[in-house]
Amino acid sequence: MLTAEIICVGTELLMGQVVNTNATYIAQKLCEIGVAVNYSSVVGDNPERLSECVKEALTRCDVLITTGGLGPTDDDLTKEIVSRVMGKELFYHKESMDKMLSYLKEAGKNMTKNNEKQAYLPIGSIILENDNGTAPGCIIEDGGKCAILLPGPPKEMKPMLEKALGYLREKSGMVMKSRVLRLFGIGESRASALLDDIIKNQTNPTIAPYAKEGEVTFRITASAECEEKASLMVDEMAEKVYAIVGEYIYGEGDDNSMEKVVVDSLNKRHMTLATCESCTGGLIGQLLTKVSGASEVYGFGFVTYANEAKMQLVGVKKETLDAYGAVSEETAREMAEGARRVSGSDIAVSVTGIAGPTGGTEDKPVGLVYIGISDKNGTEAFRFVQSGDRERVRKKSALCALDLVRRRILG
Amino acid sequence: MLTAEIICVGTELLMGQVVNTNATYIAQKLCEIGVAVNYSSVVGDNPERLSECVKEALTRCDVLITTGGLGPTDDDLTKEIVSRVMGKELFYHKESMDKMLSYLKEAGKNMTKNNEKQAYLPIGSIILENDNGTAPGCIIEDGGKCAILLPGPPKEMKPMLEKALGYLREKSGMVMKSRVLRLFGIGESRASALLDDIIKNQTNPTIAPYAKEGEVTFRITASAECEEKASLMVDEMAEKVYAIVGEYIYGEGDDNSMEKVVVDSLNKRHMTLATCESCTGGLIGQLLTKVSGASEVYGFGFVTYANEAKMQLVGVKKETLDAYGAVSEETAREMAEGARRVSGSDIAVSVTGIAGPTGGTEDKPVGLVYIGISDKNGTEAFRFVQSGDRERVRKKSALCALDLVRRRILG
Repeated sequence: MLTAEIICVGTELLMGQVVNTNATYIAQKLCEIGVAVNYSSVVGDNPERLSECVKEALTRCDVLITTGGLGPTDDDLTKEIVSRVMGKELFYHKESMDKMLSYLKEAGKNMTKNNEKQAYLPIGSIILENDNGTAPGCIIEDGGKCAILLPGPPKEMKPMLEKALGYLREKSGMVMKSRVLRLFGIGESRASALLDDIIKNQTNPTIAPYAKEGEVTFRITASAECEEKASLMVDEMAEKVYAIVGEYIYGEGDDNSMEKVVVDSLNKRHMTLATCESCTGGLIGQLLTKVSGASEVYGFGFVTYANEAKMQLVGVKKETLDAYGAVSEETAREMAEGARRVSGSDIAVSVTGIAGPTGGTEDKPVGLVYIGISDKNGTEAFRFVQSGDRERVRKKSALCALDLVRRRILG
Repeated sequence: MLTAEIICVGTELLMGQVVNTNATYIAQKLCEIGVAVNYSSVVGDNPERLSECVKEALTRCDVLITTGGLGPTDDDLTKEIVSRVMGKELFYHKESMDKMLSYLKEAGKNMTKNNEKQAYLPIGSIILENDNGTAPGCIIEDGGKCAILLPGPPKEMKPMLEKALGYLREKSGMVMKSRVLRLFGIGESRASALLDDIIKNQTNPTIAPYAKEGEVTFRITASAECEEKASLMVDEMAEKVYAIVGEYIYGEGDDNSMEKVVVDSLNKRHMTLATCESCTGGLIGQLLTKVSGASEVYGFGFVTYANEAKMQLVGVKKETLDAYGAVSEETAREMAEGARRVSGSDIAVSVTGIAGPTGGTEDKPVGLVYIGISDKNGTEAFRFVQSGDRERVRKKSALCALDLVRRRILG
């Protein structure tokens, strides 16, 4: 198994002005292709310290990946330093210069004297073209080890990393396949506990949990000599996972968010959805309209933060509000019914709750949320008590609402 | 000036399962009190590698800060390793055990045999109590250097870091003061260029730019022997910055977002706001309702993603849509006017645009957005062409809309 080390170069990272998402992204991608990351560090734009770190990394790992320090300014020294440590001279690479010229021209910018140094690259290196910026990257090989130099801006780095991953996959001689299972309605620790046997005994395929804002994903990755075998191994493991936590799996794939699954499910059935939001204040609408093409299924949303809005826009009865309060099953039902009626949509979902930090009482604590859902078969409302701060209560409630819509559509 | 190094311990960080926000947060806080961060690294739960990194850090820096590895499991070895490297024995600290017992009891959890090891702490260390978890932290001093051990979960780490910062401030013998100026409507590079002279010549106070989603902040920090002097230094620098980019400054302070400034400004004037959103799909409502207490000023929101919704909910005329299209100055005006009329609010803001990636034409490209604003003095609409992907167009448009509301309220 290849071992790797990541060095991210940049004083802005070291000072905490920018969150180091590059290291996370690269580590994930390396794990996916079965390369083990042993160290990850951040160094400022300081030649001595960088040189020291590079030397050390090359003694202890097979693959060094750097980001940053390939720019045109005097501070940008990564290429110069790594080349020196690895004993490679730089040469003028005309193709890179031409590429840079045409890139700058297209961006309406002028070539500066400084840019020239970006066209100098280590002799014998594999050059990684940059389609989104001026700095080319490169792979420097030396005695079975290699250093992969990538630029810092994520939109430049990511596509170049893909090429480098291709190189590493070839170097390892294996084919990797993976599937990402997405769960909602279960916490990471409970999901991991249920899958404990599988997780503990993982070798190949591997199974990696990720938790983020109210959902959990499991990435299953297998490596094999050929694609068919790797796929089969992944599928077998996925089947085991489905057998245990299948009821929580709402979709698969890296980009397949809950809102996307809902929009796609509605689209497939030519159904329309309306929203009526109180404590989430527009969050569900915002999530749905993140999905390009949401307009096919989502036309009407009501943000009824005030009681007057609940009455005036979607016809919640004054008596209901007086008798049960704005945060109640009855109000949630009337909000959903009203939103469906006014908009003429096939299905409507409503949220009313106490997001906090204030406004809670003994009977109705912070985190209490009712979600209503209405379609041609009738109207239901569900009660939740969400934990966490205001933003977490709101986010979880929005996802719960979308999940209820999804389940209702699927029947 | 004290120099520091940060080591974050955890295989989940190394594998990219979790973004390393701790390193960013700690670096920012250290910079604010004038401690220079020279290295920052991530090490897995591997005793040899961790030991190596700790040794190295202590040879090259004054202050080592670690996060993670203070938990109850066998993997958690940070305290044991740092203590060994620094030649300190562990002792049983009864107060920490009592604290842990009462914490676990309150959380309704049982003490496990494993937890016991968390009550063993390095002899002679300063103990950092943990109010939000079981793992106490500590400060180990040795020959002018020190190691500060903090737990990994941010909600436990952050309050404990505050205590450690107090310790470091005392160690440095200086008082720090800072102000954060928040700008909107100007990019980081242009703002930095305008302030180039100030930024280039900074020593004390320092001025640090941060860019995030459509806005830029500058943090001014001064250190002096007493509070009065530090405050005066910061104020003088802030005055210079206001003189150059004051028109873009919408507020001050770490937690003072654009939505908070808008809600506060409305509140102060007892005014109400309504929103009517097309391409932002509820994002403005969602931002406003992030602010606790938004209900005083925001009661009605319309998500009019479909043309039918624009006509039915806020009375946009069919002729207007036919003649000018949904993305037009005229539609934006009618949306704002209608939202204000229907809701009875003092002021209303509307957004209609093409967020992309599809739907653009030569006349109306992706990124074209009209923002309407209506109050008792009349209705205006503004045209923007936003760059970036769908989410960026939407986010920037929502912030533009809020900024226009703010400027309208201020007159």
